Amino acid sequence: MLKQFTLAQLADVLAATYQGDASHQVVGIAPIESASQDQLAFLDNPKYKKHLETTKAGVVILSQELAQFCQSNALIVDNPYFAYATVAKLFQREKQFSTGAHPTAVIGQGCTISETASIGPHVVVIGENAVVEAGCVVGDLCRLGDQVHLYPRVTLYDGTHVGARSIIHAGAVLGSDGFGFAKHQGQWKKVPQLGHVIIGEDVEIGANTTIDCGALGDTVIHNDVKLDNQVQIAHNVEIGEHTAVAGCTGIAGSAKIGRDCLIGGAVGIGGHLSVCDNVAITAQSGVSKSIKEPGVYSSTLPVQKDKKWKRTLARLNQLDKTHERLKQCEFAVGELLMREKAESEK
Amino acid sequence: MLKQFTLAQLADVLAATYQGDASHQVVGIAPIESASQDQLAFLDNPKYKKHLETTKAGVVILSQELAQFCQSNALIVDNPYFAYATVAKLFQREKQFSTGAHPTAVIGQGCTISETASIGPHVVVIGENAVVEAGCVVGDLCRLGDQVHLYPRVTLYDGTHVGARSIIHAGAVLGSDGFGFAKHQGQWKKVPQLGHVIIGEDVEIGANTTIDCGALGDTVIHNDVKLDNQVQIAHNVEIGEHTAVAGCTGIAGSAKIGRDCLIGGAVGIGGHLSVCDNVAITAQSGVSKSIKEPGVYSSTLPVQKDKKWKRTLARLNQLDKTHERLKQCEFAVGELLMREKAESEK
Amino acid sequence: MLKQFTLAQLADVLAATYQGDASHQVVGIAPIESASQDQLAFLDNPKYKKHLETTKAGVVILSQELAQFCQSNALIVDNPYFAYATVAKLFQREKQFSTGAHPTAVIGQGCTISETASIGPHVVVIGENAVVEAGCVVGDLCRLGDQVHLYPRVTLYDGTHVGARSIIHAGAVLGSDGFGFAKHQGQWKKVPQLGHVIIGEDVEIGANTTIDCGALGDTVIHNDVKLDNQVQIAHNVEIGEHTAVAGCTGIAGSAKIGRDCLIGGAVGIGGHLSVCDNVAITAQSGVSKSIKEPGVYSSTLPVQKDKKWKRTLARLNQLDKTHERLKQCEFAVGELLMREKAESEK
Repeated sequence: MLKQFTLAQLADVLAATYQGDASHQVVGIAPIESASQDQLAFLDNPKYKKHLETTKAGVVILSQELAQFCQSNALIVDNPYFAYATVAKLFQREKQFSTGAHPTAVIGQGCTISETASIGPHVVVIGENAVVEAGCVVGDLCRLGDQVHLYPRVTLYDGTHVGARSIIHAGAVLGSDGFGFAKHQGQWKKVPQLGHVIIGEDVEIGANTTIDCGALGDTVIHNDVKLDNQVQIAHNVEIGEHTAVAGCTGIAGSAKIGRDCLIGGAVGIGGHLSVCDNVAITAQSGVSKSIKEPGVYSSTLPVQKDKKWKRTLARLNQLDKTHERLKQCEFAVGELLMREKAESEK
Repeated sequence: MLKQFTLAQLADVLAATYQGDASHQVVGIAPIESASQDQLAFLDNPKYKKHLETTKAGVVILSQELAQFCQSNALIVDNPYFAYATVAKLFQREKQFSTGAHPTAVIGQGCTISETASIGPHVVVIGENAVVEAGCVVGDLCRLGDQVHLYPRVTLYDGTHVGARSIIHAGAVLGSDGFGFAKHQGQWKKVPQLGHVIIGEDVEIGANTTIDCGALGDTVIHNDVKLDNQVQIAHNVEIGEHTAVAGCTGIAGSAKIGRDCLIGGAVGIGGHLSVCDNVAITAQSGVSKSIKEPGVYSSTLPVQKDKKWKRTLARLNQLDKTHERLKQCEFAVGELLMREKAESEK
Repeated sequence: MLKQFTLAQLADVLAATYQGDASHQVVGIAPIESASQDQLAFLDNPKYKKHLETTKAGVVILSQELAQFCQSNALIVDNPYFAYATVAKLFQREKQFSTGAHPTAVIGQGCTISETASIGPHVVVIGENAVVEAGCVVGDLCRLGDQVHLYPRVTLYDGTHVGARSIIHAGAVLGSDGFGFAKHQGQWKKVPQLGHVIIGEDVEIGANTTIDCGALGDTVIHNDVKLDNQVQIAHNVEIGEHTAVAGCTGIAGSAKIGRDCLIGGAVGIGGHLSVCDNVAITAQSGVSKSIKEPGVYSSTLPVQKDKKWKRTLARLNQLDKTHERLKQCEFAVGELLMREKAESEK
């Protein structure tokens, strides 16, 4: 059932030129840093060109401009991210839908599984004394540790792992597709999201919280992390042990949050950045650069009476001009002082 | 089964006075700009008085003060919005609840419908090769195009249309009532939400995203729009083709977003405004006025160390006073310079 | 079935020392202000020491340092909040899961209950003409008033009360555990959330909104409150009559919101504070202190063109230094003016 494609076959699908061994076979996809000989990788951003020197990928999708730096077999295309989206679709597992409830799943002793829960038809493993309440949906290839508790209407997409003793509250969704699209001729092309969600042990996840699966690789929530209600975790985020995240906070793709952090409510954390261990962030703040030193960070903006706030806002919008005026004023004062000094020294 | 009421009957229900033809019949409700002879409209905000000159509405609900400008049949009341709420309830379709699963719906070839999904008892049409996963609820009069994929536990309220190939992730809710209430004697009166949600083709909608139905008229998401998780779209919003909206963003009622826009995560967009095509808005920004020029817009406020931020905030709160001090300082310097010049010219 | 423990038994469980009557029995837990002779309370924050003078609690968990001020029976521990979490677990009701649909619930005349809804096995009472749509989950000991309407997939955890005529939209979750954890030796310990959610009459709750149960005592939404979609209400919040809260707003634990307030979208309200009656808060604002005067409050930050905003932001980050520079400039001008005056008086 393993899907495999030769370099020549892929070139054909993509209408791409290629360099290297036409008969080289790949059986999967991985990030360029970790891909092996039987895997395909892609390189879109020239910033990561250096990976071409060390990658072990069997095939790399890249642009003409970067092809010269590539020692591996290569597929040469105009838009590598778009081409990757096309190839990734080839490798996507075909889903068979279960329309019943309890199937061939391996369910541990002492479990309580609601009759209205749906358990995927493939190899699902549920640990001992787990509870799956009404209306839950557990996809194929999911694994739930001992004493996991899914409150009503939790949805686990295929391949989600939940560690022992973790608690997931009603309406939470784990493993939904990451928000990945490649623009091509003015139209969005969906980039298949091939990774999964891996939840550690003793994690608690709040009601209606959402955690997307990884694009490639996984979204990982480590042991003893606590997420409040309506938190949104994008693809490939990683959250370190014992970190707590309050309600309504959103963490963008590939952000890496350290251990023992306290993230306030409604905080926004940008993508592709990292927050070190032992950081606290106050409510409604925004993180748009990596944080490399432990401590408390903030951009919380508390209310004032509306009338006062409107004046403050007007002044804020003039701030650049105000600064210029201050500079001119300082300059004039400096001149006055100099002339006064010159006068007194006469 | 069509509901119809004469002007005199409606005046009776509302204990209103009226002007015009007591026997004139209306069979529905529409916005004042588009209402026809057999429809009723209302006018609450004097700002829209000009519509009275051109409206074709069979009956208009309005205040005494505006009645003189109305050529149509009119219902004259103290609080037109409250009276509208009362009348709208008369026209609301009575819902019959299905308590089973698969009914008389017209379901295309090759569809996969979970046994735990609920499909409304009235005329539901589902296109070919559509997938409706476990726990979904598809209300009456819904239409799903070919290859639509509803992941588990999606809820479509009555009358929702979803175009071909669109994907809706787990827990999303489309067509819930807009947030519309009229205050009357200190108490909220629910304004029936009579419109629907219309989703174009190739749209993707993230997990636990919510889209309210229109109050009158519809909430419209055009082709190839991509909405991330936990986005909130209020009643009568319209989003143009190819626009992408990142997670946790909220768009208030009747806002009109253009094509090819990129809206960052946790952005707030105010009601009754428009954003033109090709606008990008950075994460956590707020839009409170219409945007009429393409470009990048921002009010993202990134964190600082808390100690520094507290000082910045203190200064921000003094900004109006600081500005005043700068003005006085400039004035004093101006006077000094003038006197110095006068002195030197002596 | 009532659980009861003597002071000595509890000391044993906690490995705590105690003072007072070893055989004194308690049957439940309550806040220190309201606990009675047969209830246990805890005191963690020395700020609330004064309650020791007046409490009627049968047993108080506290630290060695505060034990001298305690007239009641006391359990003396290093970390009172952690010890409380342990004891609270002893008193938690053991849940029996229903795996079927309709049970022994008392259901009023004229109700419409979907066959795919799950109704808890214990004493549930549902009023007349209530509607419970597909996929809803109604936990044990819930009470729904007459004409309550639960749209599809609403989840009510055990013990939730919903007053007459209230409407709850799809995907909303009421009664999920509050976000309460005690840190102990670097690990989070779950603090059992023992309270409930109490919803008044004529309340409307939007799609995918979440309301946590109280930690001790209840989370209370009073009559005629209107909550939009994706609102998050933390444990022990109280919201006064006729208040309306727009979408995506989050209210942190134990905040108390007054009557007739209008809270805009995506507002953040901090924990343990109060907002008085008749307050309006504009969208995306943050409330971090109690508001004691009616009026409009704001910290909404509207977008500018990104280029201009970046300059404004740079100036904002220098604001403290700018202020210092203005002070020096003013000082220099003051000196110049003084010397000029002295000169002219010569």
